[in-house]
Amino acid sequence: MVKILRVNMATQECVFEDPPAPYAGMGGRGLTSLIVNKEVKPTCSPLGPHNKLIFAPGLLGGTACANANRISVGCKSPLTGGIKEANSGGQAGGHLAKMGIHAIIVENIAPAGQWYQLELTPDTAKLVPATVAGLNNYDAVAKLVETYGPKCSYVSIGRAGEFKLTAASIAFTDRELRPTRHAGRGGVGAVMGSKGLKAIIIDPKDAKGAPIVEKEAFSEASKRFTKALTTHPVTSQGLPLYGTAVLVNILHEAGGLPTFNFSQGRFDDHEAVSGETLNQLTKERGGEGVVSHGCMTGCVMRCSGIFPDKNGKFMGKWPEYETLWAFGPNSGVNDVEMIVRYDTICDDVGVDTIDVGAALAVLMDGGLLEFGDAAGALKIMEQISEGTALGRVIGCGAATAGRVYGVRRVPQVKGQSLPAYDPRAVKGQGVTYATTPMGADHTAGYAVTANILSVGGTVDPLSTAGQVELSRNLQIATAAVDTCGLCLFVAFAVLDIPDALVAIVDMLNARYGLTLTVNDVPGVGKAVLEAEIDFNRRAGLTSAADRLPDFFLDEPCPPHNKVFDVTDEELDSVLKW
Amino acid sequence: MVKILRVNMATQECVFEDPPAPYAGMGGRGLTSLIVNKEVKPTCSPLGPHNKLIFAPGLLGGTACANANRISVGCKSPLTGGIKEANSGGQAGGHLAKMGIHAIIVENIAPAGQWYQLELTPDTAKLVPATVAGLNNYDAVAKLVETYGPKCSYVSIGRAGEFKLTAASIAFTDRELRPTRHAGRGGVGAVMGSKGLKAIIIDPKDAKGAPIVEKEAFSEASKRFTKALTTHPVTSQGLPLYGTAVLVNILHEAGGLPTFNFSQGRFDDHEAVSGETLNQLTKERGGEGVVSHGCMTGCVMRCSGIFPDKNGKFMGKWPEYETLWAFGPNSGVNDVEMIVRYDTICDDVGVDTIDVGAALAVLMDGGLLEFGDAAGALKIMEQISEGTALGRVIGCGAATAGRVYGVRRVPQVKGQSLPAYDPRAVKGQGVTYATTPMGADHTAGYAVTANILSVGGTVDPLSTAGQVELSRNLQIATAAVDTCGLCLFVAFAVLDIPDALVAIVDMLNARYGLTLTVNDVPGVGKAVLEAEIDFNRRAGLTSAADRLPDFFLDEPCPPHNKVFDVTDEELDSVLKW
Repeated sequence: MVKILRVNMATQECVFEDPPAPYAGMGGRGLTSLIVNKEVKPTCSPLGPHNKLIFAPGLLGGTACANANRISVGCKSPLTGGIKEANSGGQAGGHLAKMGIHAIIVENIAPAGQWYQLELTPDTAKLVPATVAGLNNYDAVAKLVETYGPKCSYVSIGRAGEFKLTAASIAFTDRELRPTRHAGRGGVGAVMGSKGLKAIIIDPKDAKGAPIVEKEAFSEASKRFTKALTTHPVTSQGLPLYGTAVLVNILHEAGGLPTFNFSQGRFDDHEAVSGETLNQLTKERGGEGVVSHGCMTGCVMRCSGIFPDKNGKFMGKWPEYETLWAFGPNSGVNDVEMIVRYDTICDDVGVDTIDVGAALAVLMDGGLLEFGDAAGALKIMEQISEGTALGRVIGCGAATAGRVYGVRRVPQVKGQSLPAYDPRAVKGQGVTYATTPMGADHTAGYAVTANILSVGGTVDPLSTAGQVELSRNLQIATAAVDTCGLCLFVAFAVLDIPDALVAIVDMLNARYGLTLTVNDVPGVGKAVLEAEIDFNRRAGLTSAADRLPDFFLDEPCPPHNKVFDVTDEELDSVLKW
Repeated sequence: MVKILRVNMATQECVFEDPPAPYAGMGGRGLTSLIVNKEVKPTCSPLGPHNKLIFAPGLLGGTACANANRISVGCKSPLTGGIKEANSGGQAGGHLAKMGIHAIIVENIAPAGQWYQLELTPDTAKLVPATVAGLNNYDAVAKLVETYGPKCSYVSIGRAGEFKLTAASIAFTDRELRPTRHAGRGGVGAVMGSKGLKAIIIDPKDAKGAPIVEKEAFSEASKRFTKALTTHPVTSQGLPLYGTAVLVNILHEAGGLPTFNFSQGRFDDHEAVSGETLNQLTKERGGEGVVSHGCMTGCVMRCSGIFPDKNGKFMGKWPEYETLWAFGPNSGVNDVEMIVRYDTICDDVGVDTIDVGAALAVLMDGGLLEFGDAAGALKIMEQISEGTALGRVIGCGAATAGRVYGVRRVPQVKGQSLPAYDPRAVKGQGVTYATTPMGADHTAGYAVTANILSVGGTVDPLSTAGQVELSRNLQIATAAVDTCGLCLFVAFAVLDIPDALVAIVDMLNARYGLTLTVNDVPGVGKAVLEAEIDFNRRAGLTSAADRLPDFFLDEPCPPHNKVFDVTDEELDSVLKW
């Protein structure tokens, strides 16, 4: 039986309820955004009792579908002031889906100073005083595992979430019970902290998996989908061998690798922080290092390697491309081990690597430390957990760091920092940054596909032509992908192999007994976006917030020396249909 | 000849020009807001080259009219993201008006790291490298006076402005060449800092004063106006004897004195930080202390006393009511000497006492230090000039302090902190906070008049009835008052003595050869507000930004135990006509 769990932090009541009709057919981002739109007062204080924090597995979660176990987290964002969905890998999404839990809606706030953890099984839910308050994610999870055992999955915030920093993330354990997977963006960890919820322990017990209406048809479609993923060169070769860090050298070559706080598009030392280097060091060192490692059950792409130190001991997961970029080229740091350390600090204290890395570069631009000062950066990173003023500032992300240090060149939209693709050299990405309801977000409409990788066609990244349509279509498709609980990287196969999308639709039909066609998919994506745009409008975000900062329009970016010149009118046409 | 001075910080060119037609008939706030509306890109980065900083004396500046020498400062605010006008006393407004300088428009930004000072005479304007960069206001002005002499007036920013902190103010010297008068709110000092403009030296030389078309009529009207001001009990007795601090005991009595970060409306130790105490200590100590002292030439109300230390030496100006409130009741501090020290630090480093004091209370609410910890507060205040992370955070004001320290109860609207009147106990003031285009601002529509002082009628402060109309009418009238360069406190007389407004209109007619009637005054105020609202709309501020934070709607405020219950619909009707 599909059900929704409501958790009232003020009264500590946990109530399972049947999902109301409009929620029943939705999952993942579609569901979190729908609930935020329907239930959250748009003008509320994001850290107050009127905000809600929603966890939802996707429509294909808990099944045999490859890469479908991601979990969406939704709320009003304390970073952007608008709606937020951040999704993550790890085990929680699959577990919740198998348990028939459609969504967890965390409401109200706990009495001041009280911390709780939520114990969850397929049939029971209980808030108990937190045993791990004050701990960061690695220690917290280790202690919880001692109590609850290795068969559970764990959701937690580190001290950044306790401090309610606006770049605080929510951590989800991977298959090795490490808190390495994060709903990173938009300060969802701060919202969890504001509610007094330190952790969720998900014990799937003998949950039998998501029910399938037509098992044979599902199985057949699932195999076709897996075949597409294991055939496409990006998902079958590039990602498993080099992780998302495969992009470092590619973006450098394209002149779209933002360097020194978006001052240029190439970084001389790019090789040192590339996926190729991660691969080589991991192989050389061996030990606990792993090339081609999946972050969640059901992953066939396996992009998230494990990085060993010189003695072969676990040092951290392979940093994502965006993490390597933020702390590497954008901060002028060329030491990949140091970047792994920063990444592990971020996973531990629980912050978004993109916004914190971008904040570091902003502080460098403002003169607090030199570009490339890796040791100085480490000292600042360590302060996040200590809760010093500077640690909190960087833990609030680039916009706050820029404000506090009076820096003019702050790469942000709606208060959220731009990720690892310069909008002047990858203009489709710039269109997405400006217009997605999420604040600057590469995943919301990943135009790097056609702009750089020639996946799903080719659109000249330096021209304005075609970027609006590209971003629009990708934003619509992504909203649908996120609703299914699918890893975004399935898009590479979906864009190039027509049967991949057919297979997804076939699985949805078999899972729920529906008769959708591929022509129905855009409608799902549009409905999700419409709910998000409507919330943002009522929260006070207008088209004036759909703009890149001036300096992208004023300063040409070497080596192409282009500015961002998509017009305001074009931007305003992106999410209209 | 009336003229406008354009100062291009990038090229260091200074050009006098005839004011274009739409600017010619405007002054003060009316002019700064008109220029911002016409010339500033609404979505620009406030600290970037596309923002402009405008200084303008009022329509009656430089004449014999009492209390008409205030100066308006306008720009896009880095604090609110909307339009800003902050005005100040001191000598600069009168000097500019006498020199026939209608407005100074500071454009573009200086090359990074360069600081300039503007040398200004009636006929010449020149940017030269700043001799006082790095100094705070007292030292900077002292050094400038050594060079330029005692007949000039001085405009400067302290280190807070150099740091581009969003609560940074711009200082204007008073008649004793002390930088005690400030355009405080909205971060105008950060905009000046962003432009690389450290100071303006205004040498009025033998400027003959503003030309008067009908001198006799002006003189006659001016006398009637002065009579009204010197007759009304507030402007002739309350303000000169006790300063604006006369309000401490009055607001305590009314239960509207926000205490402990807006947790209650009365402060047990209110007497210790009252205007009566300022008066008594100043009289007892004598020396350089002064009761009844005016901040600018032509003032007949003389509310800004001089506070002596125990040895009779100058310690600071009498803190304004809002300053005493912010650092006193709202922070739980009952030591008036310590508050004078904080106030002097604010004048010196150049920050808004309201937003910085409110930030201090927010940090106390967040647990960084205890309410009432005067010594701890002093240590933080001293860090603003040092540029530590914490110093910069508090120098950015309450909204940033709340964000960095994850505090839920942040009293702000549009990012600007609420001043010294609880909106639950003085509801007309709450309506003004929510709806003024300036962000929470008491001066924009000072409903304390009818709500608390029974000036201009009586409107029950605890009821919602009549507050919308009260705030609307006051906001319209205030925009007109600010356009004339009049001190807001003339409103006490204007509201109660019908001839005061007639006298103002008579002076405008005599000064410019016009035929206005009192019925034309609201049209002026409305036009100003319309320009401001239009800019804000294009900058992305909607009615969703015209709201008080949730906690004012959720938490009853003792002793009256009322919440703010003016409806959203009522708020949305305030600035419509």
